[in-house]
Amino acid sequence: MEPTTLTLVGAPPQGVSAEEFKAVFRHHPAGVAVVTLRTPDGPVGFTATSVISVSADPPILAFSLAASSSSRPAVEGAESLVVNFLAAGQQDVAARFARRGVDRFATTTWATLPTGEPVLAGTTAWVRGLVEERVPVGDSMLVTVRAVRADRGGTDRPLTYVDRSYHRLDEHSRLG
Amino acid sequence: MEPTTLTLVGAPPQGVSAEEFKAVFRHHPAGVAVVTLRTPDGPVGFTATSVISVSADPPILAFSLAASSSSRPAVEGAESLVVNFLAAGQQDVAARFARRGVDRFATTTWATLPTGEPVLAGTTAWVRGLVEERVPVGDSMLVTVRAVRADRGGTDRPLTYVDRSYHRLDEHSRLG
Repeated sequence: MEPTTLTLVGAPPQGVSAEEFKAVFRHHPAGVAVVTLRTPDGPVGFTATSVISVSADPPILAFSLAASSSSRPAVEGAESLVVNFLAAGQQDVAARFARRGVDRFATTTWATLPTGEPVLAGTTAWVRGLVEERVPVGDSMLVTVRAVRADRGGTDRPLTYVDRSYHRLDEHSRLG
Repeated sequence: MEPTTLTLVGAPPQGVSAEEFKAVFRHHPAGVAVVTLRTPDGPVGFTATSVISVSADPPILAFSLAASSSSRPAVEGAESLVVNFLAAGQQDVAARFARRGVDRFATTTWATLPTGEPVLAGTTAWVRGLVEERVPVGDSMLVTVRAVRADRGGTDRPLTYVDRSYHRLDEHSRLG
């Protein structure tokens, strides 16, 4: 179609506030993962809704981590980690690994890989990878990870997060 | 719970093939965006399911782009771009902006910002931003973008993509 020039109503652009930016991404859906690591002080894990595939060959994924995250020291010190892709029904796991001041592993079934990293049970898949780069971006860090082992779980039904709610995707949510 | 050591069945890890890696991410849900840019040859746009928020203050997002993408030269030459967050119902727009050899803008309602970039109609939101970094990662590129203008649309119902299908998230898909 022929374009029209858009008239922007309101004040001229003055940048985007953190609140405005968060409001846009609040309505951007995402799969839910828990990133787990081994540290000298025990297992560490945190919920991440920013895991993306970057490159398939070589297989590299990325996620972002805020400076304020309690898991930041663990990620900065890690050579390897596991990305656990949560299944529909694991919303309690997602909530627990996003909570401060609790033993996040206490109520979750998990195991230890021969290489030492924790891996959660009941997920759609997990990927073990080697940390490649930690790129400082604003108040956060973009972490790239090269996959060295991937394991599909017993279910393909993933957990989805949007607008502070968890959702299930199935034939009922499917469009056309 | 107490961890158990996981017994990994099968051959020892030999890395992860591109096919295995793609299979994991095929089941990882994502919101759907169309990235649009102005070029000397006209408007360019492509569908992206890898848009994530990296930092809120300053407001920075990121997405990945494969080396093989026909839009790569446009992104490499761009100083600014628009991320259009698609709404449920815009699956035809998503499919069209992922198709090669067609005029992607031909059947879509769009406008031109005073700064020159195309912006699509009917989305949940759009963000205009300045390209900050293009980080080569494997066979792809991670692009970080600092938001300078954000505009929320008339709907909060986003489009979600998983396993080659589009989905709608609403009260029916919501989990407990």
